[in-house]
Amino acid sequence: MQHSDLKSAGYGDEAPIAALATIPGSCALTVIRCSGAGSIELFSSVFAPSNKKTLLTEAEGNTVIHGWIVSKEESEKIDEVVISIFRAPKSYTGEDSIDISCHGGHSAWKAVMAVLKDAGYRDALAGEFTFRAFMNGKIDLTKSESVIELVNAKTDVSRRHAVSRLCGSLQKEINDIKALLVQVLATAEIYLDYSEDEISADFDAGASDEIAGKLPNKEIARDALKKLKKLSDSWLLERLYQQGVTIVIAGCPNSGKSSLFNSFLKEDRSIVTDIPGTTRDWIEAFVSVEGIPVRLIDTAGLRETNDSVEKIGVQRSRTLLQEADIVLYLIDGEMGITDDDYEFLALQNTEDKYIFIWNKSDIKPSPDGYISISAKTGQGLAQLFSTVAAVIKKQTDVFQLFDEPNAASIGIGTERQKKLVDSACSLLKEALVMSENNEPLDLIAPLIREAVNSLGEITGEVSTADILEEMFSRFCVGK
Amino acid sequence: MQHSDLKSAGYGDEAPIAALATIPGSCALTVIRCSGAGSIELFSSVFAPSNKKTLLTEAEGNTVIHGWIVSKEESEKIDEVVISIFRAPKSYTGEDSIDISCHGGHSAWKAVMAVLKDAGYRDALAGEFTFRAFMNGKIDLTKSESVIELVNAKTDVSRRHAVSRLCGSLQKEINDIKALLVQVLATAEIYLDYSEDEISADFDAGASDEIAGKLPNKEIARDALKKLKKLSDSWLLERLYQQGVTIVIAGCPNSGKSSLFNSFLKEDRSIVTDIPGTTRDWIEAFVSVEGIPVRLIDTAGLRETNDSVEKIGVQRSRTLLQEADIVLYLIDGEMGITDDDYEFLALQNTEDKYIFIWNKSDIKPSPDGYISISAKTGQGLAQLFSTVAAVIKKQTDVFQLFDEPNAASIGIGTERQKKLVDSACSLLKEALVMSENNEPLDLIAPLIREAVNSLGEITGEVSTADILEEMFSRFCVGK
Repeated sequence: MQHSDLKSAGYGDEAPIAALATIPGSCALTVIRCSGAGSIELFSSVFAPSNKKTLLTEAEGNTVIHGWIVSKEESEKIDEVVISIFRAPKSYTGEDSIDISCHGGHSAWKAVMAVLKDAGYRDALAGEFTFRAFMNGKIDLTKSESVIELVNAKTDVSRRHAVSRLCGSLQKEINDIKALLVQVLATAEIYLDYSEDEISADFDAGASDEIAGKLPNKEIARDALKKLKKLSDSWLLERLYQQGVTIVIAGCPNSGKSSLFNSFLKEDRSIVTDIPGTTRDWIEAFVSVEGIPVRLIDTAGLRETNDSVEKIGVQRSRTLLQEADIVLYLIDGEMGITDDDYEFLALQNTEDKYIFIWNKSDIKPSPDGYISISAKTGQGLAQLFSTVAAVIKKQTDVFQLFDEPNAASIGIGTERQKKLVDSACSLLKEALVMSENNEPLDLIAPLIREAVNSLGEITGEVSTADILEEMFSRFCVGK
Repeated sequence: MQHSDLKSAGYGDEAPIAALATIPGSCALTVIRCSGAGSIELFSSVFAPSNKKTLLTEAEGNTVIHGWIVSKEESEKIDEVVISIFRAPKSYTGEDSIDISCHGGHSAWKAVMAVLKDAGYRDALAGEFTFRAFMNGKIDLTKSESVIELVNAKTDVSRRHAVSRLCGSLQKEINDIKALLVQVLATAEIYLDYSEDEISADFDAGASDEIAGKLPNKEIARDALKKLKKLSDSWLLERLYQQGVTIVIAGCPNSGKSSLFNSFLKEDRSIVTDIPGTTRDWIEAFVSVEGIPVRLIDTAGLRETNDSVEKIGVQRSRTLLQEADIVLYLIDGEMGITDDDYEFLALQNTEDKYIFIWNKSDIKPSPDGYISISAKTGQGLAQLFSTVAAVIKKQTDVFQLFDEPNAASIGIGTERQKKLVDSACSLLKEALVMSENNEPLDLIAPLIREAVNSLGEITGEVSTADILEEMFSRFCVGK
């Protein structure tokens, strides 16, 4: 590993750190994590075990102790807690660590944190626990990144893909490909070390066309390239599962927008309604459409205000429609197509992103060319949902990858990984082309070496302080 | 204990239950709690330890195991977790229990909960873990209630008082008082069991005046009554620390309302700004004034809008002022007292709750009768804060109790406890009065017995299903 230069980056020390690991509020518990060299000894100065005979400093790893956080002079009991002791290297970070389960609410954790800082712990930086885990060889970078992925996963399929990488699927694939390239490189270097004559003597006749300077083990290199391309392609699908799409429901007043919105919510029982507290004029929710996270926006109400506000509403509607990946435009089947609808249809070009829906089909059947539903009776909704899924897949160009969307196939989890895979791809491609053109092996070999380094950067075998700091600072504090 | 009738209340079984113990969201961990008879065996069907040799069903209590939550057929890894095993009776509930630390975010805990429910756990009811702890004799009712208090504590002083009750201070005080009454009762019953002649023979001459039917051990009964009264009085103070007061900042535009608001926030570094996500036209924050939780409301902006909205603003201001416990009315010292100020002063009666403040004293000194401050330079703010604290104390009639506000003196933590203490008080008082009136001991003794029962209800020795269910259902789920 080449991380020694990180010691100066603020992330590189072994000082005892502490941070909230859960969101505090009205709940049973708040968990505070502590880690670092000497952190158990330090903690013993502010902890009074319920069983007076227990000696924290002699407690075994992976044990749970009940007791009280006390002020440094033991003059006051601060909170009743349950702590888990982890001894290096058997901990998340690979260091001595303690997880403290305090009471929920705001006053307990604040008082406990104050005591910890008084004792000598410092606030952990974002991602510093995982950073230390990486530095101590507990996890590679692909696993580290999958942790953020998992926390941010919006649907069950997203989680499944993140868990696959957490299990090491990507790490293994990258290492396998790297092993292929190292094999190619090793043979190439043997060629370079010997003169042509010697090689023709040492190797069999089949290798004769490679002596002209061509890359040996070309088939292996091609195999590696194929695998790399497949990985690179996987990003389209992975990104879709991570970031999802935005779907806006539009249509005239009373066309049934809110009913359709609610139908989506009912369809998906695993809704994540993590709507931020900011005030909005529209309603939104996160739903899962075949495992794809969908930010669903109901524009209902945007126009249905008094005059002076209406202009703003219409403007906002337009912006939402422009930003949407898919627009579900509802026609009020009972009324038929109105002037407003015609105006809308005229304004919008016939992009693929518009799906025109004839609602209230229970009252009046739809003409051809519309998806016919009744948000009220539920008729046609199943078909609508699968049409939506199909449009998403088509749009994002990942149709061919959707054979086994639920299978945790090996994929890329981050933009960073994608860039490095692509870089390895181009280097390898260039090497193969040069080889075809009979260019000298001593110009080709460095390209392969560079490709190997790119792959090493993905797992973190080769990495720089900048990259690591940028990566881990995107974690939440306490992770 | 007399709780057997609770089995039918929905709270009384030992079935394996599971619930979130922390608030899920973008954080490192989410903790799920499981408890119940056979819950470790049940859990082993969905848990794969990292160390294949580990046998969960044979794991010792108070140990931590790393592994994976797996779907029931072990076909899929759901989430990487760290679990803490607790063996009955050494657990929070007194039953076999497991705390599961899942990854943060929304998808991991949802998937884990789904697996748990599939395995046979049911959702825990609100407060069901603590309920079981009580039923299994792990904690009494005063400690149970202090847990909610602690979670809701808004300032460090509130937390300290809750922790004192969690440590058993109130339980001990109640039991001590009860012991006194039981002593009185025991003597009284001896008197009742014997004829007067026998008593005069068995007891010394000093008891002669009691033979007429008066209560024996009256002094002890009076001592108990004194202690009960002190406890009853403590509620004023305790309630203040729990519920706090509302302070509204009012005054003309530009009088410096927002600056004063921010000064309060700066003064108190332990602010709890747990403002709910609803939209408000005013700004509010929770601050601590000498340990008293204060909901501080800045009305700035309420009048400073366009015409049509102004009326609503003024109306809202008035409502806020009416609901406030204290109003800080700011005069713009630079402008002097304006017509608007005079109008306001005329409208309001001279209730104690108004504190008139001359702001911008750095520009123009205040006349007599005003608290003089400069929100800008900070001059006079310290005096203002202590005036506010004094007014709060005076208002809530707890001045005499404020000698040692930080000392965790013994106090009552809930309305329920207060009611029962007061009931014991009246019964005891009535008994003493009847004794003075020489009424027969066999009419007095039942009152004392009833008082003892009231005290027993406080700690939960004597309790009914209704009371318990009402009490625990106010807990959060997972506690």
